[in-house]
Amino acid sequence: MIPTYRKQVQPFVWDGVEVLAYKEQDGTHRAVTRQVLTGAEHGQGTSLRYFEVGPGGHTTLERHEHTHVVIPIRGGGTALVVDRIVPLAAHDVVFVPSWGWHQFRAADDEPLGFLCAVTVERDRPVLPTAQDLGVLRADPHIAAFIRV
Amino acid sequence: MIPTYRKQVQPFVWDGVEVLAYKEQDGTHRAVTRQVLTGAEHGQGTSLRYFEVGPGGHTTLERHEHTHVVIPIRGGGTALVVDRIVPLAAHDVVFVPSWGWHQFRAADDEPLGFLCAVTVERDRPVLPTAQDLGVLRADPHIAAFIRV
Repeated sequence: MIPTYRKQVQPFVWDGVEVLAYKEQDGTHRAVTRQVLTGAEHGQGTSLRYFEVGPGGHTTLERHEHTHVVIPIRGGGTALVVDRIVPLAAHDVVFVPSWGWHQFRAADDEPLGFLCAVTVERDRPVLPTAQDLGVLRADPHIAAFIRV
Repeated sequence: MIPTYRKQVQPFVWDGVEVLAYKEQDGTHRAVTRQVLTGAEHGQGTSLRYFEVGPGGHTTLERHEHTHVVIPIRGGGTALVVDRIVPLAAHDVVFVPSWGWHQFRAADDEPLGFLCAVTVERDRPVLPTAQDLGVLRADPHIAAFIRV
């Protein structure tokens, strides 16, 4: 049985939803947790996750064929989305298209928590090569922003 | 080109997103608006909408084959989900399974705004028959809650 109602029992903690590691420890990310709110069993072909990046933390700089729809619901931060650095505040809507580079960073003094929708069937993320990093760093704003 | 960044320019108003009627005026709903945040062009097979129900208002009591994932992000209220009346507060996660009856009501003194994910391809909602209403009203909590 899929629960029809998952209460947020504390801020950003849901009844019956486990707080997981973002991904394996590989040095590409910092202070990120993951919670899976919905998945294949919900019959939409998509999964909705809640990620929380602690103050000063960041997700992995990566890209992939599948898309992301991201909506912050806690705190704030900044993101690289394809070739733009954008500020993030609650309820902004970010779309990461296929093969667009992306990285999410929390502000230094507050967390960044966001909903992220993906298709259930999806490819694995790819990390930037030295050549990719050279291209990204040709833009000084991106060079100053990214963490690898 | 699909925007990669839609700023929430005022609370619950997004850059370039139109505020639409919830559906045709048929007497089954009250004080509801609809905004489409993402759709087929985002490549996930789902659409994410933001609905806002004004104080004292309600959505249509209906059901359908497709599912809903609903996450309130403004105010609060109450919902019928299948056969339960549940309180709604920000970030609760509601799942409406196939053919589950559902209706969302705002509190009398505040709006209820929620994100709602659906598949892009979906069937049309069905309204309750007199017989359906008889079954629903056999539960006194549901009888007191629903608006038709």
